[in-house]
Amino acid sequence: MSPRNDLSAQEQCCAITRALSQIGDWWSLLIVREAMQGTRRFTDFQQALGIARNILVDRLRRLVDAEVLRKVDVGEQGRRHEYRLTEKGRDLFVVLTALRQWGDKWVLTDQPPLAMRDRQSGRPVRPVEVLDADGQPLRLHQVMVEHPDDIPQSVPVR
Amino acid sequence: MSPRNDLSAQEQCCAITRALSQIGDWWSLLIVREAMQGTRRFTDFQQALGIARNILVDRLRRLVDAEVLRKVDVGEQGRRHEYRLTEKGRDLFVVLTALRQWGDKWVLTDQPPLAMRDRQSGRPVRPVEVLDADGQPLRLHQVMVEHPDDIPQSVPVR
Repeated sequence: MSPRNDLSAQEQCCAITRALSQIGDWWSLLIVREAMQGTRRFTDFQQALGIARNILVDRLRRLVDAEVLRKVDVGEQGRRHEYRLTEKGRDLFVVLTALRQWGDKWVLTDQPPLAMRDRQSGRPVRPVEVLDADGQPLRLHQVMVEHPDDIPQSVPVR
Repeated sequence: MSPRNDLSAQEQCCAITRALSQIGDWWSLLIVREAMQGTRRFTDFQQALGIARNILVDRLRRLVDAEVLRKVDVGEQGRRHEYRLTEKGRDLFVVLTALRQWGDKWVLTDQPPLAMRDRQSGRPVRPVEVLDADGQPLRLHQVMVEHPDDIPQSVPVR
């Protein structure tokens, strides 16, 4: 028997599935990443990402619908728009940073990785980790996922 | 002018793009998440995720090619296999945890979120954050991305 557990995949996955349904598309995450670097205008997203116009239109619309970006009129008569990150969108910073660090660590290339630094001190940011209540790093096997019930159904993570 | 910066999207994105090219597919991340919960066999992935057989075959093959999973013979004459996380795969724990927490915070549902706890102490894990060298949380605007060159090209992150 494989070590299946008592929680269904649907129950297990819900937050991850819900998150992916909003930002799980490859292009969507790259658009968010561009927005974090300061890109705001349609043509700048298009140029920076080399993305087809129709795909960019669709993904921007989805990100606005998901309230990850908001569309702001900045020109006369509403004929120019900018796309700005919402607080929900800015909160993806940690997800994208974790993904960037994973890519730097595990998907090798000839180029040295970009350095992420604290703007004020100039010192590198730490690798993102899952921490316990005392701030000590937790590995996968040290964490369990539970229903918030009276009787916790602990899930062995192997 | 929009606040574009000096690094091209290709340079900026490289680690994120590379990471996404290996695990950026919706199903691939859910397969990794299932594997983290202990699922190892083809039929168990299929049942847990409700995923079409041909898609599961393809995504498992890609994850094995990317060395996120490894395929292990466990039966006689190699007729039974299991898919186990590699160290590279286990290292996605922080990415999936950040994604789960983002989903719990921002994509609301009727169900209460699952609790992630330190198996030993039973206490909840902290929200994943980007930390500076002293362990203090950093927000998006406090971080810059640089080329590892002699003359750093600082990138304003807005």
